[in-house]
Amino acid sequence: MQKPNETITNAWNYVDSHHEYFLDEVKELVTQPSVSAQNVGLKETAELVRSKMAELGLQASLLPVEGGPDAVFGELKSAPGAKTLVLYNHYDVQPVEPLEEWKSDPFRPEERDGRLYGRGAGDDKGEIAARFSAIKSILDSGGSVKPNLKWLIEGEEEVGSPHLHAFVMKNKALLKGDGCLWEGGDRSPSGRSEIHLGVKGLLYVEYRVKVGETDQHSQYGAIAPNPAWRLINLLKTVKDENDKILLEGFYDDVAKPTPQEKKFLKENEFSVKGLQKALRIKYLLEEKNNVATVTKHLFSPTANIAGFGSGYQGNGAKTIVPKEAFAKMDFRLVANMRGADIERKLKRHLHKHGFDDVELLVYSKEDPAKTPVESYIAETLIKCTEMVEKEKPNVWPTIAGTGPMSLFTRELKLPTAMGLGVNYPGASFHAPNEHIVIDYYLKGIKQLLCLFATF
Amino acid sequence: MQKPNETITNAWNYVDSHHEYFLDEVKELVTQPSVSAQNVGLKETAELVRSKMAELGLQASLLPVEGGPDAVFGELKSAPGAKTLVLYNHYDVQPVEPLEEWKSDPFRPEERDGRLYGRGAGDDKGEIAARFSAIKSILDSGGSVKPNLKWLIEGEEEVGSPHLHAFVMKNKALLKGDGCLWEGGDRSPSGRSEIHLGVKGLLYVEYRVKVGETDQHSQYGAIAPNPAWRLINLLKTVKDENDKILLEGFYDDVAKPTPQEKKFLKENEFSVKGLQKALRIKYLLEEKNNVATVTKHLFSPTANIAGFGSGYQGNGAKTIVPKEAFAKMDFRLVANMRGADIERKLKRHLHKHGFDDVELLVYSKEDPAKTPVESYIAETLIKCTEMVEKEKPNVWPTIAGTGPMSLFTRELKLPTAMGLGVNYPGASFHAPNEHIVIDYYLKGIKQLLCLFATF
Repeated sequence: MQKPNETITNAWNYVDSHHEYFLDEVKELVTQPSVSAQNVGLKETAELVRSKMAELGLQASLLPVEGGPDAVFGELKSAPGAKTLVLYNHYDVQPVEPLEEWKSDPFRPEERDGRLYGRGAGDDKGEIAARFSAIKSILDSGGSVKPNLKWLIEGEEEVGSPHLHAFVMKNKALLKGDGCLWEGGDRSPSGRSEIHLGVKGLLYVEYRVKVGETDQHSQYGAIAPNPAWRLINLLKTVKDENDKILLEGFYDDVAKPTPQEKKFLKENEFSVKGLQKALRIKYLLEEKNNVATVTKHLFSPTANIAGFGSGYQGNGAKTIVPKEAFAKMDFRLVANMRGADIERKLKRHLHKHGFDDVELLVYSKEDPAKTPVESYIAETLIKCTEMVEKEKPNVWPTIAGTGPMSLFTRELKLPTAMGLGVNYPGASFHAPNEHIVIDYYLKGIKQLLCLFATF
Repeated sequence: MQKPNETITNAWNYVDSHHEYFLDEVKELVTQPSVSAQNVGLKETAELVRSKMAELGLQASLLPVEGGPDAVFGELKSAPGAKTLVLYNHYDVQPVEPLEEWKSDPFRPEERDGRLYGRGAGDDKGEIAARFSAIKSILDSGGSVKPNLKWLIEGEEEVGSPHLHAFVMKNKALLKGDGCLWEGGDRSPSGRSEIHLGVKGLLYVEYRVKVGETDQHSQYGAIAPNPAWRLINLLKTVKDENDKILLEGFYDDVAKPTPQEKKFLKENEFSVKGLQKALRIKYLLEEKNNVATVTKHLFSPTANIAGFGSGYQGNGAKTIVPKEAFAKMDFRLVANMRGADIERKLKRHLHKHGFDDVELLVYSKEDPAKTPVESYIAETLIKCTEMVEKEKPNVWPTIAGTGPMSLFTRELKLPTAMGLGVNYPGASFHAPNEHIVIDYYLKGIKQLLCLFATF
């Protein structure tokens, strides 16, 4: 375990004597609503974030995003020859409904029991405030930020970053760097810091079968085509009862865990029982042991039915042959699969099996991304976490969720990692009573400033 | 084709000179609401029907039905040695909602364009009025009803006759007879009279799978059990992609059409194209020729999915693993299958295939019923229809729908037939603007009085 250098020690002391001030940073951001789904307060929030960057000494501006709200971009130039660290966050938040379930006003942050409540407290304003605070701690305690910083804060992550791809492709030069710290630093249920080095990809589709203009009396069941059965006949060609996905070539590009990844999978803290309890679920599909479960969780692609609907859904009995049926399916993709490739394979599969009458809608497509655990950004994150927490973090080769990270790893060639955050699993992201634990927030600042002082 | 005797000729003339009077019979019944689903006006309607029976000279009374509204029962005694004809109808109607789609008040019958509109005009008050009118025509024109009549009119057919079984079992002696005229005499789309000699049975079940307390983020899709997939894996053991039902012994008791039934299937008027157009459906499962289609329609049991629901059903994408899934399935059963037997076989099947975790709800169970085309009641119906219509009726061995007819055929040993009715396919039963065609109504009275004069 490495020792903190003087810059870090001074900045840590600064953090310890400025708790209230750094909490005010979160409160200021939370107080300003910025609900992208409802187009509320985005302009004001972008300007607030830009002005706070400028106050810190960053060269900060609003960059136009075609079709969406401005992104905030800030740069801090360091000594010649310094590496460049890119930071990604978002200033928008989820809607607050249902409002009646909040114990305090989501836009009037409130401290209760060592926590700070408010919409965006964790996702992602608390994290932005922690990064502000980390930079400020270094500078105000007489130190300097080691790498050049390039900080991108977009305004529509909570609606799926629909324009980020075009924006990144247009600003490739601007976003060049040696590593990227993503949003979403998290902890395990027991409170251990976690580092994640990738995301799964996603292909989200809907199958639709329509056989007539109206539902039929089910007396016609022997001769009228049934769209629910049609869809089931389709779905059983997609996956068998052992969960093997049957599209030709589906598994071609699936990467197995490297020896280094396997080592972390073994050493990380993970419990099948704990996950089962957290999810309130009866059983898991793979329960041989903790390592097998988490490996399946992170390294297996899926063909998940997220929704299925046809015919009568009320209480009791109604005797109809439905006129239509649909199923929504998300394929989670692991390295090195590609969304467009799986889409092609799915279309070929449907045609080959005679399902040309079924309409296929493609809602979203995202490639997986992964950064090696041996990368400099990963090593620095591990080091900084250990320094603050006095214990090893969990280092996960990927999360099982999805985000636009492949834009950064693939298009910008940026080794990208998630960690050093302020969040934890109970934080109620996207839900009523979102909050951060103040202790984690302050530790997060200390982890972050280590990165800014040493990368 | 037989000629009408004097009783019939006189009564037909009476009908011709009393059109307005007989339409008023329908109007009087329609004006009195009797919505069983909403428990509206049942008592009043039962008493109205009883008093009208009594006026005609029947011995009429209200019989208690345990748990439901009274049934009306009327008897007319004829000469010693006469056969006994049982009549079945119901005095309750469907709800009228959506009221705004009616062109006139559903309970203020209105004549427009040769039709009479109102709730129950066809189902089943128009038919009751036609039977009243047929008896009255014979009696008032100097003739006499040939068979003894036993007329049962229940008050909860539109909610599935939940207490009819117990009532019939309790009143077996009262309902003894030589044949039964059921409700629902109908015509083909082209206007040809139809006679139906049976009904399919029904076993209506719901499968329910629950794997957890809440939906999960679909990032857990690789390890969290998916109830929709679980249900699909179950359903594909129930029926294969060629529509073969896979329960062991499912087809054991299925009766093939008899040579006599085959003859009628061939001679009846039926068109695949016509049905397809009427149903507004893209294709039928069997289209080789008209006879093959209608044979499959009437003689094949089904395992129909009437509803399937799981997870997200809104627009666009939501990435969840659903917590539960359900499917509603109606098995239509043909002679000589039994509902209880198929229920047993289904339960055995689910256990054998390892689906003990799936909850099975049984909503209803009804045996099929069939009366031979060579029976006396069938022959009389054919004769009386031809006499009025001057053409052969379509004689169907069964309808594809279901009703409690097996109570009469099996428990009471009553050959039972449907025909001689006032209805036609465009009558909007159960829907807004229900009506009868006045011309069909008057012809229906003439067919009915032939039965009452000759059975």
